[in-house]
Amino acid sequence: MAVYTHVSAEALAEFLTRFDVGELVSAKGIAEGVENSNYLVETTQDRFILTLYEKRVAADDLPYFMALLDHLAAKGLPVPPAIKDREGREIHELEGRPACLIKFLPGVSLSHPNVAQARAAGEALGAMHQAVADFPLDRPNSMGFESWKPLLERCGESLDGIAPGLYRDLDFALGDLAETWDRQGLARCAIHADLFPDNVLMLGDAITGVIDFYFACTDIRLYDLAVAHAAWSFDTTGEHYDEAVGNALIEGYSQSFPLSEVEHSAFHDLAVGACLRFTLSRAWDWLNTPADALVTRKDPLAFWRRVKVYDPDLATLLPTLA
Amino acid sequence: MAVYTHVSAEALAEFLTRFDVGELVSAKGIAEGVENSNYLVETTQDRFILTLYEKRVAADDLPYFMALLDHLAAKGLPVPPAIKDREGREIHELEGRPACLIKFLPGVSLSHPNVAQARAAGEALGAMHQAVADFPLDRPNSMGFESWKPLLERCGESLDGIAPGLYRDLDFALGDLAETWDRQGLARCAIHADLFPDNVLMLGDAITGVIDFYFACTDIRLYDLAVAHAAWSFDTTGEHYDEAVGNALIEGYSQSFPLSEVEHSAFHDLAVGACLRFTLSRAWDWLNTPADALVTRKDPLAFWRRVKVYDPDLATLLPTLA
Repeated sequence: MAVYTHVSAEALAEFLTRFDVGELVSAKGIAEGVENSNYLVETTQDRFILTLYEKRVAADDLPYFMALLDHLAAKGLPVPPAIKDREGREIHELEGRPACLIKFLPGVSLSHPNVAQARAAGEALGAMHQAVADFPLDRPNSMGFESWKPLLERCGESLDGIAPGLYRDLDFALGDLAETWDRQGLARCAIHADLFPDNVLMLGDAITGVIDFYFACTDIRLYDLAVAHAAWSFDTTGEHYDEAVGNALIEGYSQSFPLSEVEHSAFHDLAVGACLRFTLSRAWDWLNTPADALVTRKDPLAFWRRVKVYDPDLATLLPTLA
Repeated sequence: MAVYTHVSAEALAEFLTRFDVGELVSAKGIAEGVENSNYLVETTQDRFILTLYEKRVAADDLPYFMALLDHLAAKGLPVPPAIKDREGREIHELEGRPACLIKFLPGVSLSHPNVAQARAAGEALGAMHQAVADFPLDRPNSMGFESWKPLLERCGESLDGIAPGLYRDLDFALGDLAETWDRQGLARCAIHADLFPDNVLMLGDAITGVIDFYFACTDIRLYDLAVAHAAWSFDTTGEHYDEAVGNALIEGYSQSFPLSEVEHSAFHDLAVGACLRFTLSRAWDWLNTPADALVTRKDPLAFWRRVKVYDPDLATLLPTLA
């Protein structure tokens, strides 16, 4: 959430000459994105986001992300594709980093989406899943189920510094989930995998953009809805569930993409999985970010607490959720 | 250089209703400013910078800064005044911080300004000094000459960790400067006091904005030119002086505001003062910023080295500049 790589105005003006986008008028480093450096760039023709990819986004994955955005944009979905230069290239290099010039989308990310906004987000997610039916590329989910146990072990007993007994409880919940995770033969497709309200731009109740596809991957389709549900339907502490918002998200999704019976019955397990995924990644960041760093550490327990809503029976077995 | 205070889209939309500026369309936290939080805000009518003032800018000083910007803007200078709300207020509170909605100016900050651009900056600075002849308010320079010795003592012997002997050399240079600093009876006025290329927006060779007035104060007028000269005429290491750029800055200034004989002869002492001011403040930041913090620490010695150009005789007496 900062600008890690400085791009001088002179270098940026030179970079823009590769494209047919007019001349540089303004550039502001913006505090957005998952450990990328982003600039809001204005030219004599239009506005753009310039993204320089730092450590978390592997250069090798960019062709997948950009192909997915092109695919969705071509089907009319409100996603920001990369701008092609005069030779048709989307992925460039700038200041030693992979870099893309990306379409700017209006709209704001809401902190407290209402029912109508959640319904719109669900619809948009369902529409994306419809649209990727013929998307040909695959990318493993580097933050998928198989990664959770190794991440738990890398965090290790330090987790008990966040909440006494957390390591044991996470290990128990993971073991519980392992028994059911793969058995249902749920449909898989390209998923966003990180559809937080942060990553949806809105004007009023209308969606103007779905952004930040840098966790996109091939995984269980319903898991994408489960992540969104866990992300949209709770307050920031994870203590308070807004059932109306949660239901609206599922209803909106179902309008675009009806859920099967097996999906309905699997939903809560997948939501517990989503909770574990973000509890673990936030815990890892928490344990590895100095308390005084400028990056805001997000409370890992805020996602852990959501398990009480998705699997109350499991939660009673977990002292950290008592 | 980060967003310290988060403003939700909902809170921002509500805040904007105080003004006659249209409705919120987009908001991006931007990585700019001296420890303030800044957002680039777009409405259905225009674009603005929303600034929330964090610790370094005292709320008590905001009326001075805003009055100065209004004064300069009223005289047609390209500075960004605060937008008045429907009741005529410029200074607000948002998320518990003093906050202003500020006019957005196009243009980019250059990293390597050329001769024509330096001349334009000098002209603009001279024009500002002409324009403040009838500006009635005063503000002491909290980073002025009187503050340097106390700041040196607060840094103390830790300075020798930056360069062996630095404490002694800075103390010597300060003592040398103290003999001449006040004797000339140089004219005083409201000055910008921080006119780095960062704080000047340009399109081509034309200035579109002078920004970041949060060090503005009443001090020796020529000192403002000395700060700008030291900031514009060297590479980032402080080793390489670009005489053509330096001369252009002074020539441009002189076109707006001719220098007196006494000012000509005092210029190099004031430039040494400017070097000391930024060496000391950067040294303080250096000693008090963890090496792994997201804030980039600026090399204090880069300003110290400039003394070799402004006072070669003094520099020969200083082992750290040998």
